[in-house]
Amino acid sequence: MRIDVLSLFPEMFEGPLHDSIVGKALDRNELEVEVTDFRQYSTNKHGNVDDYPFGGGAGMLLQAQPIFDAMAATQQKAQKLGHEKGRVILMDPAGKRFTQKVAEDFAREDHLTFICGHYEGYDERIRTLVTDEVSMGDYVLTGGELPAMVMIDAVSRLLPGVLGNEESAPGDSFSTGLLEYPQYTRPADFRGMKVPDVLISGNHQKIDEWREIQSLKRTLLRRPDLLEKLELTGDQKRKLRDIKIELEDDQA
Amino acid sequence: MRIDVLSLFPEMFEGPLHDSIVGKALDRNELEVEVTDFRQYSTNKHGNVDDYPFGGGAGMLLQAQPIFDAMAATQQKAQKLGHEKGRVILMDPAGKRFTQKVAEDFAREDHLTFICGHYEGYDERIRTLVTDEVSMGDYVLTGGELPAMVMIDAVSRLLPGVLGNEESAPGDSFSTGLLEYPQYTRPADFRGMKVPDVLISGNHQKIDEWREIQSLKRTLLRRPDLLEKLELTGDQKRKLRDIKIELEDDQA
Repeated sequence: MRIDVLSLFPEMFEGPLHDSIVGKALDRNELEVEVTDFRQYSTNKHGNVDDYPFGGGAGMLLQAQPIFDAMAATQQKAQKLGHEKGRVILMDPAGKRFTQKVAEDFAREDHLTFICGHYEGYDERIRTLVTDEVSMGDYVLTGGELPAMVMIDAVSRLLPGVLGNEESAPGDSFSTGLLEYPQYTRPADFRGMKVPDVLISGNHQKIDEWREIQSLKRTLLRRPDLLEKLELTGDQKRKLRDIKIELEDDQA
Repeated sequence: MRIDVLSLFPEMFEGPLHDSIVGKALDRNELEVEVTDFRQYSTNKHGNVDDYPFGGGAGMLLQAQPIFDAMAATQQKAQKLGHEKGRVILMDPAGKRFTQKVAEDFAREDHLTFICGHYEGYDERIRTLVTDEVSMGDYVLTGGELPAMVMIDAVSRLLPGVLGNEESAPGDSFSTGLLEYPQYTRPADFRGMKVPDVLISGNHQKIDEWREIQSLKRTLLRRPDLLEKLELTGDQKRKLRDIKIELEDDQA
């Protein structure tokens, strides 16, 4: 996979792209990432990329020209390297919410381009270049760089051969659809806080059962919305009923 | 405000903390950030911070000891500098969703500590140190570093005196409750794509009216859930009714 990033702050990406799972994907040649400073495509003699909004208002807007020209250049380069245009992603609060499902869709692509806005906003005409407007959530950030890094991380770990342990990806929350059960590692007694006996019993059937009950319980208490989306097995439904009875008894 | 970050990858933070709005908050002494590599607190002779889960399973878990000891040390240092313990934040998919409201809450604090997990998960006992479990969304990342950076960015720009233009913060989406209207900057005609006439009319009453209608329309079409949370004025309700009629006519 190739990822192009258009950003005014390419040095922001250095640390995050070289550590962590993204670095591993790069090392294994499952991924190539190129961050392009679109300021270098500005035809303005001062290298400006922003200007005041028509009609007045606070803040500055990214202009269309540097983005259009940087886009043309990066797409041409990618094409020479054998990559089709692929998806072009812009962070926008009006966009579809980024979820694991979106990460999986993106991971199946051969080429992604992230346009990172900055300043107060961008010229509306930039949207005409974009295939996917994505929202990271209902909060305000300074720029699109951090959301782009988040998406690159989420996508990288789904590329084939990137996660060391093949079991790691599907075992996560949002793959099973339930929140994870509590996990413990050594020591069994840490400053008086003990690991539940069942986990050191060696009885794997009991351990699996305990874990499933804990997952169901945590999901019920903290993200009941996730349960509604799942098709539970008969056994899971029975467990959930028992958990509800137990919780009611606790309250009484 | 002081922010402590506990992470195994402190160098990931270098770019993001020095560029962008966070760097500005640091320069203005509105913010101090210290990233502590908690591996240095491991009492294990190899500096290990992770171990296999009790009861079996894939992946490695962060152990309690390095986090507990790094936490004690950073809190002690912060206290010497005059900061109370404040909130301790852990990324967890079971946590409350990060929103602008949460960012505003955090921005009112004097001291925040972010614990960045890595590997498959962490020892359950680490949760006993935590005041806030926060979820960035329903997707899986390699570690807590990028979400911590996202939250630090969102919080930094709310600190007093950090945003240059005092009008910038409240004008954003999620502050007005509506999505932003389309914005345009020069040139008025970019490669055949023209700015709407009203924006270059100089009639500010008409411009404001057009913008409000566009905001309402975009919110109706793309994030109708936001409208439900708002108390619209009588004038906005009338505009929204007209927009709906217009959209129905377009479909017919």
